Amino acid sequence: MARVFNFSAGPATLPESVLAQVRDDMLDWQGSGMSVMEMSHRGPEFVSIAEQATQDLRTLLAVPDNYRILFLQGGATAQFAGVPLNLPGDRADYIVTGNWGKKAHKEAGKYLDARVAATGDDGFTSIPDQSDWDLDAASRYVHITPNETIQGVEFPNDPNLGSDVPLVADMSSNFLSRPVDVSRYGVIYAGAQKNAGPAGICMVIVRDDLLGHAAPATPMVLDWQAQLEADSMLNTPSCFAWYVCGLVFRWLLDNGGLETMAATNARKASRLYDFIDQSDFYRNPVDPAARSRMNVPFLLADDGLDKSFLSEAGEAGLSSLKGHRSVGGMRASIYNAMPEAGVEALIDFMRDFEQRNG
Amino acid sequence: MARVFNFSAGPATLPESVLAQVRDDMLDWQGSGMSVMEMSHRGPEFVSIAEQATQDLRTLLAVPDNYRILFLQGGATAQFAGVPLNLPGDRADYIVTGNWGKKAHKEAGKYLDARVAATGDDGFTSIPDQSDWDLDAASRYVHITPNETIQGVEFPNDPNLGSDVPLVADMSSNFLSRPVDVSRYGVIYAGAQKNAGPAGICMVIVRDDLLGHAAPATPMVLDWQAQLEADSMLNTPSCFAWYVCGLVFRWLLDNGGLETMAATNARKASRLYDFIDQSDFYRNPVDPAARSRMNVPFLLADDGLDKSFLSEAGEAGLSSLKGHRSVGGMRASIYNAMPEAGVEALIDFMRDFEQRNG
Repeated sequence: MARVFNFSAGPATLPESVLAQVRDDMLDWQGSGMSVMEMSHRGPEFVSIAEQATQDLRTLLAVPDNYRILFLQGGATAQFAGVPLNLPGDRADYIVTGNWGKKAHKEAGKYLDARVAATGDDGFTSIPDQSDWDLDAASRYVHITPNETIQGVEFPNDPNLGSDVPLVADMSSNFLSRPVDVSRYGVIYAGAQKNAGPAGICMVIVRDDLLGHAAPATPMVLDWQAQLEADSMLNTPSCFAWYVCGLVFRWLLDNGGLETMAATNARKASRLYDFIDQSDFYRNPVDPAARSRMNVPFLLADDGLDKSFLSEAGEAGLSSLKGHRSVGGMRASIYNAMPEAGVEALIDFMRDFEQRNG
Repeated sequence: MARVFNFSAGPATLPESVLAQVRDDMLDWQGSGMSVMEMSHRGPEFVSIAEQATQDLRTLLAVPDNYRILFLQGGATAQFAGVPLNLPGDRADYIVTGNWGKKAHKEAGKYLDARVAATGDDGFTSIPDQSDWDLDAASRYVHITPNETIQGVEFPNDPNLGSDVPLVADMSSNFLSRPVDVSRYGVIYAGAQKNAGPAGICMVIVRDDLLGHAAPATPMVLDWQAQLEADSMLNTPSCFAWYVCGLVFRWLLDNGGLETMAATNARKASRLYDFIDQSDFYRNPVDPAARSRMNVPFLLADDGLDKSFLSEAGEAGLSSLKGHRSVGGMRASIYNAMPEAGVEALIDFMRDFEQRNG
């Protein structure tokens, strides 16, 4: 089969040129006589791959000098525990705007008093205004989820807390989709499998002063300071995922970086939302001010047509459009690697499906 | 460059046919129109890959029905904490026979009274006889490291504790190298990156009755029962590593399974040890009864020749022979995927190097 347009929420579509490079490197990376999967993580070849990827990520996100970058195993979900374990305290504030924020909040409750300082409406279709956040000045940190993959709600901008309490963000599903003012955050963490690479690796960007405070019972693989001292190689890292992330970073740099990516992503999202909004056949329930540029959930007016929509879309080479079971309907994830042609093909299909069934 | 013989201790050489399959699948797995790296872990394609790999591992190791198999992130090092967190108690016994056992013991000390019930000699060149283990009947478990990658010492057989105290084994570096009597163990865990696949995934095989006891402060990604209920997909797993492991399991089944592998590995190791023992130029310090069939450390009588040995070996296509910094000298890791021709090429080189420098 030819390559499909893959709208999966994650693991998600990757740039075809990156996959081609991975394929070509598979049995012999740059004359080393071995695959990246076979290399000692302590050897000069892999160390060069890891260092280049880290440097490229720093460049892409304009990470200030007083922040460190880690590449860890366990996914963002491991950091749901990693955050309170590395920033131990009596309490922390969580802004809960969707399923992932709920999970982060619940996990933190194992380690401290995790407060819900603000939350979206019942269906998580909006972002509470910062002036309505009920923050506790004694909190160790404030946690947000800038983009909620399932509900498709996204913070329009980087919040500015205007206090000494560090802002911690699970940026998994909009990481590298636009420029970020890293200095607004104490900690940014992100699983790779949306915009950065394959599943199995999580980037953690931490401000210097937040390192070195881990609780004694922190598993060493989750201890940011210990991992920093070992260049994220306290134990064997997820080497192959790290290498693929590095190729994606290079692809981003070669294609104009995050400014260009943000413009393209905004254009893709607008095209799709505009089409949905002008139709009575499709509907997106999210507050327009909080609509995600990455994950676009939509409902058919007649959910009895969901099954044929998905099956016919699949036949048209439009894959993985089924919405999350907790929301229903459809979801189109349109990450960096989804070309504009994929969004156009989706809209063409949706228009045609509506004409035949509307 | 042509493919080299790669003696890295891990990540380590993989079967060339597996790498060729991975390469051929890269842009389009079995007509799905996408790479395995791009697939939703909840979709039918990846679920079929994961289930087949799990079933093949069960077949290979003859895992009894009352054991569950998990595929987790974080490496064996994450399980150094995972074991005491899932089996909480007042104390546990550790049999420390090398660097990895030392690390496991130290990490466990964060969670319980971790006793050293037996240890090797100072240089870790032997395995203490089971009759000399100072076990505490009240221990929650007994932990062993059946093969120590750095020192090259290996338990000759599966111990039989003969008590109700569960035996827990970090089998990372001899996993799948020979048949194992799983029923002797309560828990077996193993990072993939020696004999099973790429780094970034760790298999945990647990007896039913040891599930469901995790301490309240266990990070959910390390909670075996929670992961079991989610089919190891509590969060996005290390999908691509899981898939490659599945191809390695299939390669093992297609090549006679673990009986055949054990015979080949014994032959490879004997050839190398016999050559070293007949020489005054090379030396292996390990008690012959405890010599690893996977990792063969050896010293040159004149360590002033180490550098030229390594450089000439590299030129001869024999890669990654440098010993661990804590031991020095050389180390040849000869896992399942190292062909007998690789061991013969190493011996030929060693003989030639001795003739030129001895």
